[in-house]
Order: sequence, then C-alpha cells, then structure tokens
Amino acid sequence: MRKHNFSAGPCILPQEVFKKASEAVLNFNNSNLSILEMSHRSKDIVAVMENARSLVKEVLNLPSKYEVLFLQGGASLGFYMSALNFLEKKGAYINTGTWSTKAIKEAKKVGDVNVVASSEDKKFTYIPKNIEAGDADFLHFTSNNTIYGTQFKSEPNTSLPLICDMSSDIFSKPINNIEKYALIYAGAQKNLGPAGTTLYIVDPEKLGMTKRDIPSMLNLQVHISKDSMFNTPPVYPIYVSMLTLEWLKENGGVEKAKQRNTAKAELLYNEIDRNNLFYGFVNKEDRSHMNATFGLHNADLKQIFLDKCEAAGINGIKGHRSVGGFRASMYNALPLESVQVLVDVMKNLDN
Amino acid sequence: MRKHNFSAGPCILPQEVFKKASEAVLNFNNSNLSILEMSHRSKDIVAVMENARSLVKEVLNLPSKYEVLFLQGGASLGFYMSALNFLEKKGAYINTGTWSTKAIKEAKKVGDVNVVASSEDKKFTYIPKNIEAGDADFLHFTSNNTIYGTQFKSEPNTSLPLICDMSSDIFSKPINNIEKYALIYAGAQKNLGPAGTTLYIVDPEKLGMTKRDIPSMLNLQVHISKDSMFNTPPVYPIYVSMLTLEWLKENGGVEKAKQRNTAKAELLYNEIDRNNLFYGFVNKEDRSHMNATFGLHNADLKQIFLDKCEAAGINGIKGHRSVGGFRASMYNALPLESVQVLVDVMKNLDN
Repeated sequence: MRKHNFSAGPCILPQEVFKKASEAVLNFNNSNLSILEMSHRSKDIVAVMENARSLVKEVLNLPSKYEVLFLQGGASLGFYMSALNFLEKKGAYINTGTWSTKAIKEAKKVGDVNVVASSEDKKFTYIPKNIEAGDADFLHFTSNNTIYGTQFKSEPNTSLPLICDMSSDIFSKPINNIEKYALIYAGAQKNLGPAGTTLYIVDPEKLGMTKRDIPSMLNLQVHISKDSMFNTPPVYPIYVSMLTLEWLKENGGVEKAKQRNTAKAELLYNEIDRNNLFYGFVNKEDRSHMNATFGLHNADLKQIFLDKCEAAGINGIKGHRSVGGFRASMYNALPLESVQVLVDVMKNLDN
Repeated sequence: MRKHNFSAGPCILPQEVFKKASEAVLNFNNSNLSILEMSHRSKDIVAVMENARSLVKEVLNLPSKYEVLFLQGGASLGFYMSALNFLEKKGAYINTGTWSTKAIKEAKKVGDVNVVASSEDKKFTYIPKNIEAGDADFLHFTSNNTIYGTQFKSEPNTSLPLICDMSSDIFSKPINNIEKYALIYAGAQKNLGPAGTTLYIVDPEKLGMTKRDIPSMLNLQVHISKDSMFNTPPVYPIYVSMLTLEWLKENGGVEKAKQRNTAKAELLYNEIDRNNLFYGFVNKEDRSHMNATFGLHNADLKQIFLDKCEAAGINGIKGHRSVGGFRASMYNALPLESVQVLVDVMKNLDN
C-alpha cells in the first residue's frame, strides 16, 4: 500500500523524482557511473548545479540581480550565516516560534538584535501585524512556522531589506515583492528536495556592508564568486532538488502549486471547522497552507484517531512534541487524494 | 562497459552499495516510503544514524571516550570549526599542500597560528620530518594530500594533541596511536561515502577549553549533546556512508583494506618506476597509497595516453590543474583489476 505521507520534513517528493533519483544511483546519464561516484568538477555534475540554479531563478521569476547558491548546514546554519553576512549595526527580528527564536539566538552571537514583534504571548498561535521595525540593517522573519502551523500571508510591511527563512513554504506559491529581499534561505527538505542542501537567494548588492572577516565557508560572497562550487557540494541532494524543480516547472510552476496547495488546505481546514470533534490550534487568518495543526476535544479519541490514520496508510500525522495534537503537512508533492483520505478518517471517527 | 573510476573524489564506492542505495530511494526497509521522504526523527532514520556512528567506532576500534558525528560542510568548514573548538592560545600547523594551506588560512580567523613545518619549498613533493611543534594547543596536519600525492606514513611525533584532516585516507588503513588525537575530521567523499556529510571523531575531554561563545551549528559540544541530530542531518549521504562501512566491515575492515590498498599502490608505483616514459612527482618514501601523481617525460605522448585510457574505460586520470600530469586515485572500492588495466595501458603506450 502506497503511503499518504504528511511528514513535516524531510517529506514527500514527487514519485517520478524518486524514480529518476533511484536510476541515477546506478547509472547517471548513461555514463555507466553512479552519480554518487562522479567528480563534482565533471561536465555532468557541473551541469546539474547550473541547471538547479537556473531552475530556481526561472521558477521564482527572480530579477537578474539575484544569485542562487546550493550550500550546506540547513536553516540552522543559515540563522548564523545570515547575521554574519548582513548584520552591521543592528538586526530587526520577528519572533513567530521555534525557528525564529533560534535565528534570534544565533544572530545575538554576531551583533545587536532587536525583536520588534513576537507572538510568544499567545504561544505563537498568530502572526504579528503592523510591525514597527525601526532602524536596522534588515528585518528577519520566518515565512512559515512548521511547528505551530502559522504562515505570513504577505511579507511584513517595512522599508527595511528583508531576510527570510523560507524553508517550509518556498516554491509553494509565488514570492510577492521579491525585490524587497536581501536574502532568502531555505533548507531543501520540504518543497525543494531531500535533506542535505540549503538554498540561498542573495542580493549581492547588499553584501559586504559588515566589513567582517568572514570564514570562507560562511561567506556568501565567496560562494557566489565560485558559482556555488567553492568546495565539494552535496551533489545528490542538489540533483534531487533539480529533479523536483523540473517537476514543478512541468506542473505549472508556483502559480499552479499555489492553487493545488490552497485546495488541499481548504479541504482540511473546512473539515476541522465542520467536525465538532476537532479544533484548529491557531488564528484562522494566519493558518499555514503547509502545516495544519489541530487537536481533538476528547483526549480519549486520540489513539483511536492515530490507529485509524495508520490503517488508512497515513504517515507523519502526530503533532510536534512541543505542541501536541496533530499536524498534517501538505507540501507540494502531497496529492489532494491524500488529504481526502485524512478528511474521510476524520469524518468517520465517531462511527 | 563498466568504468575504471580513478576519480579523486567524489569517487568510486562499492557496487553493492550503489545497488542498495538505489533501492532505498524507491522503498526503504519495506516501508513503502523513499528514504528521501522519511522524517529524520523516524525510527528507521534514527537507526541509520546510530548504526553509522557505531560502525565508525567499531571499524576504527576507537577508545570509548571518542564521540562520532556526521555533520555537514566538508573539510572546508572543518578547517574553521576545528580551530573554533580547540584553538585557545595558539595552533601549530604543518603545511603539506592546498588543503593544509586552507586550514591555516581559516584558523588565522580564529586566533594565533604557528606554521611549524612546510614542504612548500619543494612544491609540496615531500612530507616534513622531525617536527618541532613547540608550545601550542594542538598540532594540525593533513594526513594525505590528494592534489600533490603525498601521505604521512605515521603521525607526527609530538606530545601535543593532534588534529587531523583525514578526508582522503581515513578507513584506508588502521589509525595508529588513536589516543593522541583530539579531533579527526573527514569529508565523506573518498573512502566513506558520497559528498554531503563530514565525519568528526572528537575527544570530548579536549573540548570547552576556548571559552568561546561558539555558534550552535559550529559547536561540537552541541552536536555531541544531540547525538549528531541537532538539526536535520544529511540523511542520504549518511545512509550511503553506513552501507559503505558495512561493506568495509564485511570485507575484513581497515586491516584488509590496508593490504588491498598497498597491493594496488605497489602495482602502480612499480610500473611508474619501471617504465622509462613515466616518472613520479613526489619523494618515494612519501608517496600516497590513495593518490598517485605522475607525468610523462615526453609531452607529446600526453593526449595519446589519455585517449588510450579512455578507450580502456579509465575515468578521472587527469591531474589536478595546479599540478598537471596524471593522478590515479585508488580508494578502497577501486579493485586491483582497475589498476592492472591502467598499468597495461602504461606498458603498451609506446607500441
């Protein structure tokens, strides 16, 4: 039985991507070599990197000034690297949950940090609005909060350059007002690819302000100057990301992805609101289209619900340990049918 | 035709590893899920990480005090991280080529560096002996120099704790006097696995001396405290590394690997010394068993030799751009038969 994979990340990718990715491990591009044993300086692998980088630009319709890098370390290293490369005098941060909190912690090791808005007062169940960011080098925010299940519906209104950890909703919809961003960074393991590479979209005009002597591997300018090949890149995760971007492009790009994701989210949230057994955890207007968090009023039903989910082939529905309840992650590659299976289990829970 | 892959890294891995690695992308452990879509917190993936870490301990026969981590960033990030975690007052460094030079450059961003020995005077064609390391927190060296083709046959004689970039010869032979090491780090993409993960073997008793406020992702103590799962690890590269370690264990471990690697190196170096057309680039006693660098006396024969290599299915024999000539990398998974094919081409070059 094929699973319905609601895992929060690493998470479902398209089936055709898995097929091509599996073949490449045995014989890549009819070279009679595995992709895993090929030099990163070989023509075939350089082409993978170049293709992956230009697909990002194309799919997101990036203005030409932006540079695209496939690096390592996840958003967790991005928290530190973003501050190291852009924080000259002060960074303004919005705290919307676990990942923002970590970003703030790492930035404080670099310089002055001003937390200009936070939803911690209500356990991160909403997105702060009408932010006054004040004077700062940039405003940092987390576009989607996987753990709490909230999402910015538009970027914060500010004249400051934006830095965004977009790990969990990049490629799920178009990026509005892209020119406002100095930096977008994103761990691959949601809508982009498997764990092991991290995407950086950089406005190079905003680099070099800090005058800091940055270690080479943490220096975005160094990676840009080497076309994202300063050292051996994580070839396979980048290759699978390239395949996923090709799939996205062939399936209507981010515009169509947004339509599909909206349909999936509406199907699930409508059931959460209709079904008296369940309730959503966060403010309705701030609900994430990627990660729906919800609970059961009657705790006695919890194990029954999980058992019925498992019987239906549903994977990864248990909530994050810091929030409890349930979490349904509905990334790009999750089909509407999987959400329908989940909704059917919810509908039939009291039968 | 199956290739004879002499690539310097990423490089050949065992064929049975490719087969299992390919299957796992379609269906891992009969879960009906791809390994690429599984949560890193799932039982199956946690088991991969634990298995990979304990195989390293077992295969290298590490004393119990050592901690094993699978991180990201390659040795290039290791250059900086090693200094950040261990350099309190001063680091002593041996410069044996490109990678040592980079390690020294990154360490200087952290603190005082003393280059106590260098083979730069003779274009890195030898390994410095009888080193006087003086007073320092540690002595750093590069055990094998992929680009120049030299290798330490035993660790430098010093009472200082050792830090070693062992990227290109770890698992090719036993590590002598392991208890002398405070840290060993190694990019996976030689004898361990594909590109995308970096091995750290740490003596935790030597950590915490620097009193530095280290960013979380660069802090070895943080990774140790989270069992190498502080953030989403590069799951697939670690899985393939685990498979490669299983293969190594099943094939007699590092003792037998050393025998096989010695036989391959002797076969090739004997031909380089016997054949008047060729010459080796480095001091005989310092020749690497992993990467043999050599040239042709007659430059006119170069393209003919490369063409004959290609016709024989030989891949990756061209020398590094900074050295020229040829480089034959003979990592663990390269069979003796491949070296024989290369030697046969060399023997028949003037026919």
